[in-house]
Parts: sequence; C-alpha cells; structure tokens
Amino acid sequence: MRDGRIEQLNEIVSRSPFHRWLGCRVTAFDPTSGILELTLPLREELRRDAGDDVAHGGVIATIIDIAGHAALQAQTGFGLRTIGMRVDYLRAALSPLTALARPISVGKSVGFVDVEVFDRERTSVGLGRVVFSTRPPAVEPRE
Amino acid sequence: MRDGRIEQLNEIVSRSPFHRWLGCRVTAFDPTSGILELTLPLREELRRDAGDDVAHGGVIATIIDIAGHAALQAQTGFGLRTIGMRVDYLRAALSPLTALARPISVGKSVGFVDVEVFDRERTSVGLGRVVFSTRPPAVEPRE
Amino acid sequence: MRDGRIEQLNEIVSRSPFHRWLGCRVTAFDPTSGILELTLPLREELRRDAGDDVAHGGVIATIIDIAGHAALQAQTGFGLRTIGMRVDYLRAALSPLTALARPISVGKSVGFVDVEVFDRERTSVGLGRVVFSTRPPAVEPRE
Amino acid sequence: MRDGRIEQLNEIVSRSPFHRWLGCRVTAFDPTSGILELTLPLREELRRDAGDDVAHGGVIATIIDIAGHAALQAQTGFGLRTIGMRVDYLRAALSPLTALARPISVGKSVGFVDVEVFDRERTSVGLGRVVFSTRPPAVEPRE
Repeated sequence: MRDGRIEQLNEIVSRSPFHRWLGCRVTAFDPTSGILELTLPLREELRRDAGDDVAHGGVIATIIDIAGHAALQAQTGFGLRTIGMRVDYLRAALSPLTALARPISVGKSVGFVDVEVFDRERTSVGLGRVVFSTRPPAVEPRE
Repeated sequence: MRDGRIEQLNEIVSRSPFHRWLGCRVTAFDPTSGILELTLPLREELRRDAGDDVAHGGVIATIIDIAGHAALQAQTGFGLRTIGMRVDYLRAALSPLTALARPISVGKSVGFVDVEVFDRERTSVGLGRVVFSTRPPAVEPRE
Repeated sequence: MRDGRIEQLNEIVSRSPFHRWLGCRVTAFDPTSGILELTLPLREELRRDAGDDVAHGGVIATIIDIAGHAALQAQTGFGLRTIGMRVDYLRAALSPLTALARPISVGKSVGFVDVEVFDRERTSVGLGRVVFSTRPPAVEPRE
Repeated sequence: MRDGRIEQLNEIVSRSPFHRWLGCRVTAFDPTSGILELTLPLREELRRDAGDDVAHGGVIATIIDIAGHAALQAQTGFGLRTIGMRVDYLRAALSPLTALARPISVGKSVGFVDVEVFDRERTSVGLGRVVFSTRPPAVEPRE
C-alpha cells in the first residue's frame, strides 16, 4: 500500500465531476489482494431525511459502483463498462461511509467485484456486487 | 392522473434533502396501473465525465431507488424499507433522465417494483428492480 | 409462430441431458417480439414438499435459465455463456410451470432477457432476469 | 461440528422430494460461524451437455438455493420463504459440486446468505446470494 499508488488511483477517480462533487477518496489499496477502500464524507445534500445523518439508499449504491469500478480499474489499467449491480441493504447507514471493494474474478470478458459498505460506526450496512465488461476499449483507428 | 395527486406525491418526495438537491420530480402517475414517472434534470455535478452529459451509473441507480420507492409508497401510504436493488445497464445515458416505475407485486411482507430508465433521447438505458419490506412501521407505544 | 420453427428450437433445447430429463418443451415462439414460451411438466421428483405440487425454488430458477437461454439463442443462432441470473419469488408455485422469456436488449457483448414464470393456475409466481455474453464462440483455428 | 448436528440438518434437508432425488447432503457445519457445506453428487441427468460432466446452470442455482436455506434454517430453527436469489457464474463447473453457505445478516424480517459453489477441482465456479423472509411461520390457530 504505497502512497504513490493511492495518489495515482485518486487522480483517476477524481476525473469524474460526480466523484469530485461527492468528495470520495481512495483511502487504502492492497496490491496483493486487490482490496480497495473508498471513503465518502458526510454532505448535507446526501441525507435521506432531514434531522439525522442517515445516508440515502442511492448514495450507498453510488459508493458501491464507484469503489467497485476503482478496484477493477486498478487491475486492468483501463476504464470498464458496468453491466449490472446489486445492493442488499442491511440497515440504516450513518455517514460518513467507507466501502471495501474486493475483486472476485477478473476474466477476459467479465469481471465481478464484491463491495461491503460500512457506516461511521464501522457497522456493515450494505453489500454490493458489480459486474463489469473487462474488454479493453476499442482502439481508435488512426487515419 | 389528477394534478392534486401528483402534487401530493411530490410533497412526499421532496421531504428528503437528497431528493431536493437532485431536483427530481414526479411528473406522471396513473392510479389504475400504479405506474409512476419521475424526472431527474441535468446537473453538472452528476456527470460521469467532463465534457458530455452522460449520467453516472450511481445516478441511474439512485433514480431507480427513488422512483421505485415513490411508486410503492403511492400504494401503501407509508414509507418502506428497501431490502435490495439491482440495476442492469443497457447503454450510456444522456441526462436528463426519466424513470418509469411499475409495482409488480405488493404482498403483506414484500413488494417488488420494476423501474425502466430512459435518457433524453427516450432510449431505454437501464432496468432496475427494487425489493421493499411492506410491513408498516411499528406503531410507537404510548405511555 | 410456425410449427417448424418451434420444432427446430426444441431440437436444440433437447440436446441437453438435463432438459431431456426435465421434459421441458418450447410451446410457443413469436419471431416478431422474440417472446418464447417454455413449459415444464409436473414431475414427482421436483416437488419441494411431499404431499402437494409446489415446485422447488431451484426448479423455478432452472426454468428461468432454460427459457432465457432458449430465447436469446433464437436471436443469435448460437449458444451463449450465462453471466448471471436473478430470481424474485412472488408466491408458491404449483406445477406444471410455464415461462415467458422476452429478450430486452441484445448487444454485441451482453444480452438481457426477462422471464416471467406462471404456475398451473396461470398466476405469476416468479420473475427472472438472465444476463448472457453474446460474443460468438471462438472459432477453432484449423491446422 | 458435531456429527449429531449434521445428521439433524440432513434429516431436515432430506424431507424435500427434490432434495432426495438430487442426493444432496450437508457435509459440514460450523455452529460458530454458521457456515454450512452441502455436497451434490454427480448425476447423469444433471449434465448440461452430453459427453462431459459440466453441471447445468440451473443445477448451480439449485444448490445455492438449498445450501442457503439450510444455513439459515440452522439459525432460525424453522423453514423460511425465499424472497429472491442471484447467481453469478464464474466458469464451467464439473460435477460433483460443493456449496459453502455463510449467513451474512439475520434480522427480524430479512436474512441474507452468501453461497460459493466449488466444482470437483475445488475451483470457485459460482457466487450466490439468497434473501429470505425470517418471519416465523404464522401459528396455526387451535380449535
């Protein structure tokens, strides 16, 4: 888990305007297991309800998508098309949130990543699986 | 599809700070079929990439969650706990987005809603299914 | 819906030893919509419980897998690799079962099929979605 | 992992006619973690293709359903209604198959179980998640 690698991953993650607005950051990466940790800070705008810090279900799905993609891109070196995603909601989640993404299988055409989301009390609040197409993007023909 | 009913649904939807920030609105509701249409305007912050209007995958998951919940709440009359959600991504989606949510089965303990997402060219870009607990919230015991 | 086409689809379906044992048959096919109907007869061995004809959940998943694959193969003309499958169980299902498979999106790399399962009372008992790789099988190099 | 407990679990599993026909058996159970292992022997009728021992995708879904239910029933002490199931297929699976089911979350209304399927080469071939209603069956009123 070298800081240079995390900086590099964050440089990629922060290219997306949505990621920048969310303020999500790669906070840990283990090159041996491929496990990547992504942290999403508390923002008032992401609250499900007024009056507490419970994160909206869409926010939990979003962090799963982002963490899963970042973990798989750390393997392949290029951006991937998301085929599908599932989320199981275990309980209400207090922001800020942390996601642990673990690549399960990275084949020639399809990759699977498991993502577990923890809330600020380090309680597991959601389980996600994201399926990606692992085909490299088509090379643009040169003129 | 009476305007008063849509206003009422929007009043409920807009209670969530996240929904208000997103600016999503119920734009149609058919009480016979239960089909509900929700529209999410374009926001710069929701872009996946700089330079075009492609919506982030987390945004598509979010609109599925919101539209599914609104459609089921229109049936039950109370807020519901989301058990799980899946999204299949058909193609890149240009904002603004519209979601059509259709309740499939509303039982005593579990409800299922199908949600199809269309982009600004009215192309189908994503398919979601959301599963909710349909148990009414526990009545608070009075002293 | 020509009988010759259904015979041809059944010839393909019946190549699998598991399909032959189950006795499942393509009973309708609409080439315009691509919707395919597959019927699974009652077998004593497929009962979930002794004493009634409720089908086992694994049997419902199985008919979804078979019907989805048959419907997509009717589009592509070749067998496909299943990437994933989901089933939502709406209620207990009395055999025999019928599945209606409808291709939703058949792209160059991924295809999605929706499958609805009906029981002998024509009640909808399960909803499935199957995701396939639509890449043609690699051509074997000739020596 | 006492043999008496495994015998008891197998007595429950073998009540289902479908399970008996399949010949599946609980082969290990760890009461501390709740992890349950279920083994499905090779049967000619379960082959996807003639000529090899590759298991049909429906068979993999079936073992996931059975193992997940057995693991959760070992927690609750009563049979549960399956709400939904997903399967991700990692690669072709040679029978016999083994499934490891691990309860993830067992709440008052919903329970989640992860199931990993291994083939005869002990290769991971499929990942499943099964969602159950954990409400106890309604008590029959006595006359």
